[in-house]
Amino acid sequence: MAGNANRSRHEKAEAWEKVKGMPKAMMEKVMNICVMTKEIAQDDPRKVIHSLKVGLSISLVSLFYFYQPLYENFGLSAMWAVMTVVVVFEFTVGATLGKGLNRTLATLTAGALGVGAHYLASLAGETAEPILIGFFVFLQAAIVSFIRFFPKMKARYDYGLLIFILTFSLISVSGFRDDEVLEMAHKRLSTIVIGGTACVMISIFVCPVWAGEELHYSIALNLDNLAHSLQEFINKHLKASEEGDSNKDNKSFMEGYKSVLNSKSSEDSLANFARWEPGHGKFKFRHPWDQYLKIGALSRQCAYRIEALINGHLNSPHIQGSSTASSEIVGTIEEACIEMSVESSKALKEVGLSIKNMMRLPSSNNHISESKAASKRLKALLQSSLKGQDTDLLSLIPAGTAASLLIDIVDCIQEIADSVNNLAALADFEDGDKSPKPPSSQSQALHCECAEPVPKIDSIV
Amino acid sequence: MAGNANRSRHEKAEAWEKVKGMPKAMMEKVMNICVMTKEIAQDDPRKVIHSLKVGLSISLVSLFYFYQPLYENFGLSAMWAVMTVVVVFEFTVGATLGKGLNRTLATLTAGALGVGAHYLASLAGETAEPILIGFFVFLQAAIVSFIRFFPKMKARYDYGLLIFILTFSLISVSGFRDDEVLEMAHKRLSTIVIGGTACVMISIFVCPVWAGEELHYSIALNLDNLAHSLQEFINKHLKASEEGDSNKDNKSFMEGYKSVLNSKSSEDSLANFARWEPGHGKFKFRHPWDQYLKIGALSRQCAYRIEALINGHLNSPHIQGSSTASSEIVGTIEEACIEMSVESSKALKEVGLSIKNMMRLPSSNNHISESKAASKRLKALLQSSLKGQDTDLLSLIPAGTAASLLIDIVDCIQEIADSVNNLAALADFEDGDKSPKPPSSQSQALHCECAEPVPKIDSIV
Repeated sequence: MAGNANRSRHEKAEAWEKVKGMPKAMMEKVMNICVMTKEIAQDDPRKVIHSLKVGLSISLVSLFYFYQPLYENFGLSAMWAVMTVVVVFEFTVGATLGKGLNRTLATLTAGALGVGAHYLASLAGETAEPILIGFFVFLQAAIVSFIRFFPKMKARYDYGLLIFILTFSLISVSGFRDDEVLEMAHKRLSTIVIGGTACVMISIFVCPVWAGEELHYSIALNLDNLAHSLQEFINKHLKASEEGDSNKDNKSFMEGYKSVLNSKSSEDSLANFARWEPGHGKFKFRHPWDQYLKIGALSRQCAYRIEALINGHLNSPHIQGSSTASSEIVGTIEEACIEMSVESSKALKEVGLSIKNMMRLPSSNNHISESKAASKRLKALLQSSLKGQDTDLLSLIPAGTAASLLIDIVDCIQEIADSVNNLAALADFEDGDKSPKPPSSQSQALHCECAEPVPKIDSIV
Repeated sequence: MAGNANRSRHEKAEAWEKVKGMPKAMMEKVMNICVMTKEIAQDDPRKVIHSLKVGLSISLVSLFYFYQPLYENFGLSAMWAVMTVVVVFEFTVGATLGKGLNRTLATLTAGALGVGAHYLASLAGETAEPILIGFFVFLQAAIVSFIRFFPKMKARYDYGLLIFILTFSLISVSGFRDDEVLEMAHKRLSTIVIGGTACVMISIFVCPVWAGEELHYSIALNLDNLAHSLQEFINKHLKASEEGDSNKDNKSFMEGYKSVLNSKSSEDSLANFARWEPGHGKFKFRHPWDQYLKIGALSRQCAYRIEALINGHLNSPHIQGSSTASSEIVGTIEEACIEMSVESSKALKEVGLSIKNMMRLPSSNNHISESKAASKRLKALLQSSLKGQDTDLLSLIPAGTAASLLIDIVDCIQEIADSVNNLAALADFEDGDKSPKPPSSQSQALHCECAEPVPKIDSIV
């Protein structure tokens, strides 16, 4: 009995503690939300502006209810304008425009067909009418739902197809009760046009966020991230291993490439939105957005290699120098690796910069040829260095793998640079390097430093 | 003159050709669409069934208009039920359920708040009312739009937040013209509940497509794809190079891994949908869907390595046997690579099968230890084989890189297998291997084999 009483007292005390702790826990949660809000707002102030824009456009469209002369025209249909604003307003201009056009065109065609279906059904007599309308609704809903599975339709017209089903069903079904279908369809269309136009206007003229620009800068940023990862890989690992300090914990600096790995879906949707956008700033109406997707795909390929390079190198057992000969060779390979990485990283940075500023920067080509030259020198070194030496192949493998992956990365960067050149031609990038430079003396000078057995490197450029 | 006449005749003929060709071009387009339709339908017949289900549910809900007693209850509000069906019905049960619940709960809360806002504003007098309502609408639209940027909210409640803005604006704004806001809010809620329930019922009871099941099988399929790619890589490349036939063109067979590279977004959304689903078949309500995402992430890591392996190996110059010693070593390395790949591929297949059938298959562990043993043997071989031989390091690099990547892949597969074991524990997988086995002698034997010089290879299987 005493034990029971004790336990219940204990339980009560615990419950009381919980209740006492509740305000504190609540406060903590609220604080967390505040911190997150601040972070999101600081990270991208355009998100705050977007929220205000949404509020503004809904309030504006509400005027159709508040202002008597406007209300007399549309009556309760004004509700469709409010609905349109809520569902159509998106973060980027392209997405808003795409949704608005989809909604308007779908309402137009589905409204016309719905009115047609209503008249056709009403010819059949009172008993057959609902059956016929039901059949029409079933048929179009099934067919259009299936069309939504077509990949091309899904990418660009998914929302329009949805609204088609919606409008057709609404118009043809409510026509059964309300004979003024034509007026209803007309009101629905005009309110949707008004709502959509309000959205598009506000999204274009008040601090616009262009999907095309987003895509443009995100592609440039991705290249920069890759360059940064390579650079950090060199700083933290290869150079550290030279100094006998491996610094394995400090991974976070080189994780920029990770954001590139899964960039496909966001790039695809941005490109889809960008296609709806009119010309703006440096981007014309038919800017070659597809070319950006190609560069994005190549960047991801490059990121996969960097992933293999960084993770493989971090996981591999460190070179223990089982023989002086092999540690010497490892040193030579790592030196070449460092040079290749440094040049690759510079080339990626230049290519990213060239996209960002929409300028042709010939210096990226120099860096690429430079890293190619380093890879050729490495090959020559490897061919000659092992003759008659007592080496331990196992200790060479990590460095050899890194070298081989870096050679792949250089090839990848070459492809990226080619794609960017294509983009530059298609989108008329300006010429960045205005100062006259000696035809190829600069690159020759660069090549001379490495007067290794490799005979004719200059011809590579 | 004659030239002009000639030209115009020529142009006319061309135009006529075009007009004559039009029906043919049209026919071709129609044929293409038919072929695509057939392909999509054959590829996944559930898509056809889904389309029919959408048609069926819209027709069912239209009964609210057609059937007099029902129409008397709801009147024109029945339109909301049709709208709900159109926008809520999704391919998977989870997505439908999530959207339906989001829509219902958001309508409930926003409706209540909207009615409250209407009464509050009506207290302020006739002039202040529209201003106050406009302010409320602006405020909630801005705040809720911003909340939509919170990653967690976006993932699960995006649609609900949208509907919140919609309903609040509609109820509070139309309250300005129509005093029966409470009835309007009530009608809107009840029709939405009816439409949502119809969707959910049909999507659950008529040939359901469960998002959880989709996720489950897609994860298993991804592992199988990786296994297949590795297998094909061995078949087409390493073995072919042994026979002196490189077969570089026949890439398509090993491209299964490519579908894994960009699987993140679809897996994430499937897991989000799956969390809404009730228990079904072998999946309970709180099935560990997060664990699937972990396995998916590891699969992608493995796919990155396989990408580097396959592309690197296809691009690298083929080994030209610069010295007999090195081609001998290359042969040894490639043999070990083949063994590792074969075992890794088998292990991946087993792990995939284990997920697919929800059974623990201890044999996958055997394959993993087998491939680990192969990698250990390879290391031992490499350590010993190079002493005092005249080798050309360059020719060893491709094989060495492949070996190194394969060692990484084996590590990756080990992690995948561990994750799958976790999943098996969390989700109570059945024991697949019903035959009695010696308590731990087998695994002991496995571990003994890898004791460095690796004496008994045959006993591993």
